[in-house]
This record gives sequence, C-alpha cells and structure tokens, in this order.
Amino acid sequence: MKIAVIGAGAMGSIYGGRLSLKNDVYLVDTSTQIIDAVNANGLTLEENGQENIYRPHAVTDTKGLAPVDVIILFVKALYSRAALDSNKHLIGSHTYLMTLQNGSGHEDILSGFAPKERIIIGTTEDNGAVLAPGKVRHGGKGNTNVGMLTEDTENFLPKLKEAFDECGFNVRIHANIQQLIWNKLFVNVALSAVTGVLKCEIGCVTENEFAFTLTKKLLHEAVTTAHALGLEADEEKLLDEIREVGKNSPHGVTSICADLRAGRRTEVDTISGSVVRAAAKCGVSVPCHEFIVNLIHAMEGVKVS
Amino acid sequence: MKIAVIGAGAMGSIYGGRLSLKNDVYLVDTSTQIIDAVNANGLTLEENGQENIYRPHAVTDTKGLAPVDVIILFVKALYSRAALDSNKHLIGSHTYLMTLQNGSGHEDILSGFAPKERIIIGTTEDNGAVLAPGKVRHGGKGNTNVGMLTEDTENFLPKLKEAFDECGFNVRIHANIQQLIWNKLFVNVALSAVTGVLKCEIGCVTENEFAFTLTKKLLHEAVTTAHALGLEADEEKLLDEIREVGKNSPHGVTSICADLRAGRRTEVDTISGSVVRAAAKCGVSVPCHEFIVNLIHAMEGVKVS
Repeated sequence: MKIAVIGAGAMGSIYGGRLSLKNDVYLVDTSTQIIDAVNANGLTLEENGQENIYRPHAVTDTKGLAPVDVIILFVKALYSRAALDSNKHLIGSHTYLMTLQNGSGHEDILSGFAPKERIIIGTTEDNGAVLAPGKVRHGGKGNTNVGMLTEDTENFLPKLKEAFDECGFNVRIHANIQQLIWNKLFVNVALSAVTGVLKCEIGCVTENEFAFTLTKKLLHEAVTTAHALGLEADEEKLLDEIREVGKNSPHGVTSICADLRAGRRTEVDTISGSVVRAAAKCGVSVPCHEFIVNLIHAMEGVKVS
Repeated sequence: MKIAVIGAGAMGSIYGGRLSLKNDVYLVDTSTQIIDAVNANGLTLEENGQENIYRPHAVTDTKGLAPVDVIILFVKALYSRAALDSNKHLIGSHTYLMTLQNGSGHEDILSGFAPKERIIIGTTEDNGAVLAPGKVRHGGKGNTNVGMLTEDTENFLPKLKEAFDECGFNVRIHANIQQLIWNKLFVNVALSAVTGVLKCEIGCVTENEFAFTLTKKLLHEAVTTAHALGLEADEEKLLDEIREVGKNSPHGVTSICADLRAGRRTEVDTISGSVVRAAAKCGVSVPCHEFIVNLIHAMEGVKVS
C-alpha cells in the first residue's frame, strides 16, 4: 500500500516507521531537522527496550509525487488544513484520508479535501514521545480504532487492517466509530482545558474541589451533547474514570497545559472546541465549553504580566 | 457621632481619618503594625499634595467599648462576617451598619448582625492607596452614595450626610441605591475576574478579542440579572464604558488580579459571586459567572507548577 504520513511527531513517526516495514511510506514534515535526521540515520523507534531502525521515505515537500492510497494525518490539529493543502497533489480520486488525531470533529476539515466516503476517522491507543529528531520512544501499545463516516462501499477498511496488522498494529474496525472517539474525548475535555487554564498537573484538578467543579461542569455539557448526538455516555462512570486518571497520573501534564506553558498555540479547538461545534449542530447549550475555549485562546494571546 | 471604622486599609483609613475631625472615631484593625503606627504617629493622609495627620482612636480590640452610632465596614469582603463577629459588642439596638465595600450583596452578611432597617449600603467614588502602615494616599475624590434596604424610618441618612459632609465628604442619598451599586458592579464583574484568570492588566482584556469575548459574556449575564432585579442597564453603553476603561487605564491592575499574583484569597465572591447569588434569587442562568467564580477559587488553591 502506498501511504503518506503527514506529521513526523511521536505518533506520525511510530506509524510511518512501522508501516514502512511492508508498505511504500512517505513520512512528510515541514521540519528539515527531522527529515534530514531520518534520511541520514533512519527513523529510530525505541520499542520494548530495543532500538529499531526504520527507513520510510522522508520528505519536506511532496511536489511531483503521485497520489497515494491513504494519507494519515498526524500533524497538530490546528495545522491540519494547511498540511492537507500543501500536500493536496497526493490526493487522487481513490485516495483515502485518515485521522487518528486527538479530539473530535477532524472530519470537518478532511471533508474539504475528499468526499465523505473516503474519510477514515479513529483513535489510537498507542503512545510515544519524541526523544530527538528522528528518534521516538514507542510507549504503550493498544488498538488502532477506525471507522468511516459513511458505509465502507469499497470494503477498504479490511485491506487497511491487513496492511497495518502485518506491521504490528492491531486495527479494530468499528461501525460506530464516533462512540469510540467520544469515549476518549470525555476525559480529554474534562481535564485538558482545566489543567490548561490553571497551568497545573492533572492531580491538582481532581484534588481541588473548585477545579473539579469545573471538570464536572464540562463533563456534564459533553455528556449532554453526546446524548443529543445519539451516543452513549454514563456521566457517573466517566467521573469515576476521571478521578482514576487523577489518582494514577497525578503529575500528568496535558498537551494544552504543555503548550500554554511553552507559549505555543494549543489544540483546544479540536478538543473542547469540537464539543462546541457538535453542540451547535444539535442545539445543545454548552456555555462552559464556549467560555473555556475563549479563555484558552485569550491565554495564547495575552502576555502574562 | 460615635463611629467605628472596621478595617484600616486605604479606604478605611481615609474615612476613619477624616471623620475623626468632627466625630468620635474608633479605627479598628487586626494588624498591630498599623494600629501601633497610628497610635504612635497619628494617621497620615496624603491629600492634594500635602500630608495631613488625623487622630482617630486606633484599636485592635474593641472589647469593653460601648455600642456606637454607626459601624462602617471596610475590611476585605471575605472577612466581613468575622470582623462583625469580633466586634459585635459595638452593635447596640440603635447602631447602624454601613458598607461601602466593593461588589454587591454585602447586605446578606450585614443582615445577620442588625435588622434590615438599620443597614446602609452604598458606594464610594473616592480612592486611595496604602503607602506605609498608618500612611495612605487619598487619591481621587467623589461622591459617597448611600441608601437603605428599607425606608429610612428614623430619618438617619440626613444626619449621616451632615456628619460626613462636615468632614469633607460629599454624601448623596439615593432612594434606589442598588442601581448605583450595580452601575459600579457591571464594569467590575466584566473586567476584574477576566484580568484575574489571565493575570493581566486591564488593557490586555480590551485589546484581545478572545479575552474581550469573555468580558462581553459576563457583562451580558450581569445585565440580564440586573433587568430581572428591576434595575436599569444599557448593555451597549456599558460595553463602551468598559472599552474606555481599557483605553484610559491600560496598565490598571484589578484587586482580583493583584490578589492572585500575590497568592492571596480574592474578593471574587462579592464581585462576580454576588451576580451568581442575585441571579439565583431571580431565576436567571449565569453559567459564565458560575464558571469563573469556581475558576478563581481554584486558582487561589492550586499551586501553579
């Protein structure tokens, strides 16, 4: 299978690296530092305590390349549109666009570049961390959950599963992939933005009664929205899950918090912001989400004095 | 008139000092540093470029003193209940309790210590700043707006006005004092909490579109609440007023922001929190105020890491 992985961060490198074992993979990133390192020394994944070297094609520019079978988007969500736009010549009439990015609603952007029946959305349970340019730790492994926005008319997902599984992934095809995406989203929206505005670790949110009240308000709005979308969500069970995350990872730092600390733009629009957009579509009121999304954008722009 | 001023911060010192010109004034504060300084050197007010020294009685403890005619509460609002409780032997069957504190809804606490017909609420347009223990700059001068919760059955306010005006204040008696309190509250709730959560100066809020969206959401809720209370509020005019504050005092630091920066508890409960309580009484939904009050309490408690 001819695959382009756009975005050579931790997750892009893990998928781009391993998929290159049995596929023709182009790893695309705007960072010449990363691409040069991969071309010079290969892509090193630290897996199960050993270093494995993979050799995907690594490029900063895909001009002149022919369309691929599938593009996997792994850039930070706020650069999704720009990344697809820069690489749109890779999108032919049979190319599938796939996202496993954090948050939800990425299909709204992908739909601008391919018809709905060629868009694959999902979640990954794998995780990783960048160690150096061209070197990534492949941490926990899990399922790659995928599904389509429409019926899988060309029966593409089984082929995708075969290609991925041969390279060590464990793809699970879901008829109701939005349910899985939201299952992951609930904890994310209830904790990420709150740790962001407080610039604190996860444990502080679950331990401080006022911070946890914010979390509960956000979860309640997300659950109400999910119900309006026809998805399942058990608010009490999710609250317990969130408390568990606080107990098990008290020093965890969410991506929104890390980005704000570093003065970078955050992915809040595809995390909390995706709840705002979903709620608008089904007429649910989510004032706390609207407030916190604005607040995080304000924090991105306002110099703390 | 026998007057106790509780709280010898900037405003308490200005009122306690000047009122001592023609009245029997007790300036009460728990800070021995301030009280000792006043007893040793008098209370110095820097007024119109010159230093005037006043000699109110200054005490940390009022035990053994007889009830006074009026108690003016000038402690930080979160200490109001404790301050009245410690000095309740000053409250006799004819004692009036008066608050000119920032925010609104202080009558809810005062009502626990005196009947409604002896509670005076209001606003002060004077301002000042503490320069050193026992030394305060009396900045801008304006009206002292006062009113009662009920009819002024004993015709006390005209006597109060006479006593105050003789000492250089300009008391204005209002039949609808809540309207004046809210007029001041609107700008306060729309800016203070937002500068607090962003830990920024006032100008940053009016210049950043996302921060100003938060301000607009908060103002809208406050205006809706005011209308439900039967008060007047012109949202567009108030927004212009807020923009003007940002233009004229871009480097202004609100008390909530200053408190959070210094790691102190804030007065958010009597500023934004008073909107939450007023809204609850009249059935208005104020989710943004509820959210930001919780967020500020979380910030008071969570160590930024």
